[in-house]
Amino acid sequence: MSKLTPLRSSITRLTSTRQFPSTRNVIRPLAASLQSHLQTQTRGYKRSPQPMRDVMTGEIIQLPDIDPSLLKISKTTSPKKPLPPSKLVFGKTFTDHMLTINWNSANGWATPEIRPYAPLELDPSSTVFHYAFTLFEGMKAYRQEDGTVRLFRPDMNMARMNRSATRIALPTFDGEALTELIKRLVVLDSEWIPKEKGYSLYIRPTLIGTQNALGVGPSSDAMLFVICSPVGPYYASGFKPVQLLATTKFVRAAPGGTGGYKLGANYAPGVVPQAEAAKEGYSQNLWLLGDEHALTEVGTMNLFVAFKKPDGTVELVTPPLDDVVLPGVTRDSALQLARAHAKGDLVVPGLPEKLVVSERKLIMADLVEAEKNGTLVEVFGTGTAAIVSAVDKIGYEGRDIQIPTGPEGLGNIAKGLLDRIIAIQTGEIEHPWSVIANP
Amino acid sequence: MSKLTPLRSSITRLTSTRQFPSTRNVIRPLAASLQSHLQTQTRGYKRSPQPMRDVMTGEIIQLPDIDPSLLKISKTTSPKKPLPPSKLVFGKTFTDHMLTINWNSANGWATPEIRPYAPLELDPSSTVFHYAFTLFEGMKAYRQEDGTVRLFRPDMNMARMNRSATRIALPTFDGEALTELIKRLVVLDSEWIPKEKGYSLYIRPTLIGTQNALGVGPSSDAMLFVICSPVGPYYASGFKPVQLLATTKFVRAAPGGTGGYKLGANYAPGVVPQAEAAKEGYSQNLWLLGDEHALTEVGTMNLFVAFKKPDGTVELVTPPLDDVVLPGVTRDSALQLARAHAKGDLVVPGLPEKLVVSERKLIMADLVEAEKNGTLVEVFGTGTAAIVSAVDKIGYEGRDIQIPTGPEGLGNIAKGLLDRIIAIQTGEIEHPWSVIANP
Repeated sequence: MSKLTPLRSSITRLTSTRQFPSTRNVIRPLAASLQSHLQTQTRGYKRSPQPMRDVMTGEIIQLPDIDPSLLKISKTTSPKKPLPPSKLVFGKTFTDHMLTINWNSANGWATPEIRPYAPLELDPSSTVFHYAFTLFEGMKAYRQEDGTVRLFRPDMNMARMNRSATRIALPTFDGEALTELIKRLVVLDSEWIPKEKGYSLYIRPTLIGTQNALGVGPSSDAMLFVICSPVGPYYASGFKPVQLLATTKFVRAAPGGTGGYKLGANYAPGVVPQAEAAKEGYSQNLWLLGDEHALTEVGTMNLFVAFKKPDGTVELVTPPLDDVVLPGVTRDSALQLARAHAKGDLVVPGLPEKLVVSERKLIMADLVEAEKNGTLVEVFGTGTAAIVSAVDKIGYEGRDIQIPTGPEGLGNIAKGLLDRIIAIQTGEIEHPWSVIANP
Repeated sequence: MSKLTPLRSSITRLTSTRQFPSTRNVIRPLAASLQSHLQTQTRGYKRSPQPMRDVMTGEIIQLPDIDPSLLKISKTTSPKKPLPPSKLVFGKTFTDHMLTINWNSANGWATPEIRPYAPLELDPSSTVFHYAFTLFEGMKAYRQEDGTVRLFRPDMNMARMNRSATRIALPTFDGEALTELIKRLVVLDSEWIPKEKGYSLYIRPTLIGTQNALGVGPSSDAMLFVICSPVGPYYASGFKPVQLLATTKFVRAAPGGTGGYKLGANYAPGVVPQAEAAKEGYSQNLWLLGDEHALTEVGTMNLFVAFKKPDGTVELVTPPLDDVVLPGVTRDSALQLARAHAKGDLVVPGLPEKLVVSERKLIMADLVEAEKNGTLVEVFGTGTAAIVSAVDKIGYEGRDIQIPTGPEGLGNIAKGLLDRIIAIQTGEIEHPWSVIANP
């Protein structure tokens, strides 16, 4: 930084002069471009994030964003031994390190740190404890035999995380910068990712409000942290279809609410409805909405239904995105693959030759009728953890709608999409969705 | 405990014998009653909570509840100096101590502790950070000239806190036991409660999920903590009516959701709608529901509307309790006082002579019509912080509904209820709602 100090001062002198106001219009853009150039050049020298200032007035025009070049790494001095893959339980084991980045409304994003996995110390008045200022993402990394670590569509998670943040007035950030830092973290802890087929690293970026005050309002402080958990294959012992209880007693989300955002607030309220479904012998809830009983989501997954049409075409339907339905990354991937197949740009084995793909409203009466007519082909959920989960039964108004799943417990469309997505995620098929984390 | 050990062993011997199975039916109830007696007697000797076991089988039949007799107090060695009352900002200053009680599903409620106010140390995988396992209460304590500290209707807060806990599968507890512990805390920190008129101690009991695992399900671990913040009078510089923006763009809660429970999840999502209302010049949102635009709540308060009827009677209306409207303690207090006044059991100065009180559905068309007919008497919100807040304007469908508030900025009904509730809270009027905390 010291090398550049004289240059910096001369710019400041040049631009702060009030002697020649008429030259401002010329100096200002020139100075801004110099300043920006200087900021790029000094990246390697900076020790803490600096706000961008108006070169004429000195006023802060932009607070620091997340800056991977400032990353501080403190490695653990007592590394743990990764559990043998067979002992892994979803989300119970964490790797040696975590990423943390603090933010406050006065100074923007602070220095990112990768440090030993450890408890967070938070004042009991922190807004996350009182008003649910919390949102998160779920991502996966895979490790190949040669040590290559791959992320799946991290840009989608970053975009959604920023949308979630905006919905509850938490700070947004440069998604590419956070992806860069996540790559550093997963590569550092890559020994924790089992290379065995089906195993992966579940990555949990989380953003919480940490303002120490009980007033209800935008949080003046926040913390973004990322923790990682090695996870086993979802279908270790064969595909297991789920049974849904269509509920009208509880709602997951309503129009004008937060269902379309990945907020913590959408999850705790679903636990009791899930327990009630389990008591009646169903594994998940099918969340309905309104008097028409529109289908929205399945447990914590997006929903797909396939119908056979009179001409033999299969229609694959998922409810449209709005503020009720979460824009799932797997949902989007399944839609894109199915559409490419339908257009003939791609052949996804298992998908029907004559296929149309629709994002449209779906009501329970559609399912009831399709069951009666024998045109119900498949129902499945999509999500990061299972990728796809077949549904073989929906409890609705006192009876069960039976749904075909095929002999393996997973219908052809679900299986076709699952196989293709896994092949892309693990690098077996090269695809721009799979992003290499290694430097 | 040692004194009672021989007695305990003899009961165990007596009840565990398998020699005389036919006597079991006699021994079992006798032993249970002895066991229960023994537990009462040993309370003073216990060092950690013990589960209640079936005396025959040894099986755990009830996990330990919160037990105030086990309270462990560690006083701060560096007490802070309370801020001068004039410097207090709501919820930003906290007293020297806090109460914490841990829970887990295997051992029930652990030893309650009053200890120096300090950060909580929580694993980054704790469920509160990810899935909004958090709920809270707001209570107030007042200190009189003679040092008496009074709580207001703590039983109501305890009952609601348990209802909230049930809604998101967090543990319930003995409300009287927690009230006892809160009394100990507020008396210990009572120097922090300004004696000046209008000042009080805002008490924040909070219950969070602390399970260290990312699976979405009931939290196996939880922590209940109570922190206290001295607060100034809400109306320090005269009554300030609020302006509401009736919103259909956002919902606070929907039927089947969690609006009727005091969960953290209801709060973060309200911050952006509130900011949008502020941008349009309104101070709070009026939360509407459904196509009829039913009125539900005001910002974070319950809602009351008073109409004049043709015969001169005033009808005071508040929306009924269901799973959308929060069962406010101030709401209930206002209703009870108004009903007692209407029945003639009590005279609350300021309330109209001819009064009827209704909990019924209220739609925007009712307000629009009442404004047109000149029969809109008052609109106000109720909540723990402000007690009552007058509304003088509601922005609805592009225009403002004007509401009378009287010359002082607070209508007669709101003012009458405010004065009576404060008189009860501060002990000026003796009432069973006001509970003395001192031993």
